[in-house]
Amino acid sequence: MPNPPNNLHVCLSPALIPQYSVEDYVVVIVDIFRATSSICYGIENGAEAIIPVAEVEECIAYRAKNPEYLLAAERNGEVVEGFDFGNSPFSYTKEKVAGKTVVLTTTNGTQALHLSRRAKRIVIGSFLNLTALSLWLKTQNDNVLLVCAGWKNNFNLEDTIFAGAVIEQLKGNNFKLDDPAIAANDLYLLAKGDLPAYLAKTSHSERLKKLGIEKDIAFCLNVDITTSIPVLEGEKLVRLS
Amino acid sequence: MPNPPNNLHVCLSPALIPQYSVEDYVVVIVDIFRATSSICYGIENGAEAIIPVAEVEECIAYRAKNPEYLLAAERNGEVVEGFDFGNSPFSYTKEKVAGKTVVLTTTNGTQALHLSRRAKRIVIGSFLNLTALSLWLKTQNDNVLLVCAGWKNNFNLEDTIFAGAVIEQLKGNNFKLDDPAIAANDLYLLAKGDLPAYLAKTSHSERLKKLGIEKDIAFCLNVDITTSIPVLEGEKLVRLS
Repeated sequence: MPNPPNNLHVCLSPALIPQYSVEDYVVVIVDIFRATSSICYGIENGAEAIIPVAEVEECIAYRAKNPEYLLAAERNGEVVEGFDFGNSPFSYTKEKVAGKTVVLTTTNGTQALHLSRRAKRIVIGSFLNLTALSLWLKTQNDNVLLVCAGWKNNFNLEDTIFAGAVIEQLKGNNFKLDDPAIAANDLYLLAKGDLPAYLAKTSHSERLKKLGIEKDIAFCLNVDITTSIPVLEGEKLVRLS
Repeated sequence: MPNPPNNLHVCLSPALIPQYSVEDYVVVIVDIFRATSSICYGIENGAEAIIPVAEVEECIAYRAKNPEYLLAAERNGEVVEGFDFGNSPFSYTKEKVAGKTVVLTTTNGTQALHLSRRAKRIVIGSFLNLTALSLWLKTQNDNVLLVCAGWKNNFNLEDTIFAGAVIEQLKGNNFKLDDPAIAANDLYLLAKGDLPAYLAKTSHSERLKKLGIEKDIAFCLNVDITTSIPVLEGEKLVRLS
């Protein structure tokens, strides 16, 4: 007899996390523009750990205790004064982060992580590590919940479409999809021919353009340029071994 | 100079209503399987008013004060004992409801209504009155928020796809879409060739089939068989004149 299917579900916004029993799932946090893309890139490039926090003040508190930590924070597209860099993935190169611990300020992503903390395991996804992540999820034989960090606690297209890309790799492997997963996968199939063009019509993309970070956006849509999977251990995201 | 655009937004679940300033919008409540379809059909067929309530007990309290009211309530697909009928649209025929007031028990729909009560105006949408509703919305020159009642406080496909159908009729008329509206419209365009086939893959449809109400589902996907628009006045849904 075949094994009963595992659930493959998508939570479209942090505000919907309470609708799920997160303790029954391996959770993937998704915040494509730009937090989880930068985290994947930083861990790939040898960062020892990345610590996501919600507020600039928390970030500063970490440095008081750990003067060697790098601090990353932006407000309105500018690096906050006294910080080492902002949230651009280009800040997470080998030269800058190898062997270092980075404290990263990210509102949407941190909230999604915090609300998912009772999950069996929490890993980080982005287009950068799409296939590596999907292959690993297939080996888990467990329920998977893709949590979209979204925008201001609501649905956004880029995170949903990434969730749909993971589903495209997992479906057919004895998973049962919920309605948000079906929708996310269908939207991905519409968008995949030209991700940048599809996402150019979103409100979020417009907002990010105003911040002058089109290069970041383009970088975050690179598929499979990394293979490491960041995993939450305590308060730190580290490379899954 | 052209007028500034109005917002055309989609709220994918009652749990996301707090993310919107509902007082800035004309709100459309959407609960395709089956509450808002039954309401549209009942109002079309001459019901004087339909009063949506969340609990069977509230329903009974209405009758104590108004013995002439008809009561509609189901639990697990069966008419509750002592009630006049359930939630099937086939209960809302002329013969049964003309000139009557019906108290309807509906969990998802009532919650969506309640959370939207500060809206400029609240109307009811379903595939049955799709074009009449969309034409009326175009004349309002106001922000529109399509509120999907969803399933257990989460996203469902049928309500989202209906929202996308309304957007298909409104877009191009100086509206600005948010990401959920773009997604809903794209999903509608995928589904519109064969709505029943597209929706057959949803979990909700599977659940409804188990209740033996496939005929209700098919009926709720009839497009433009009614022209009246139910509108909330006080606690009652009545025909918009």
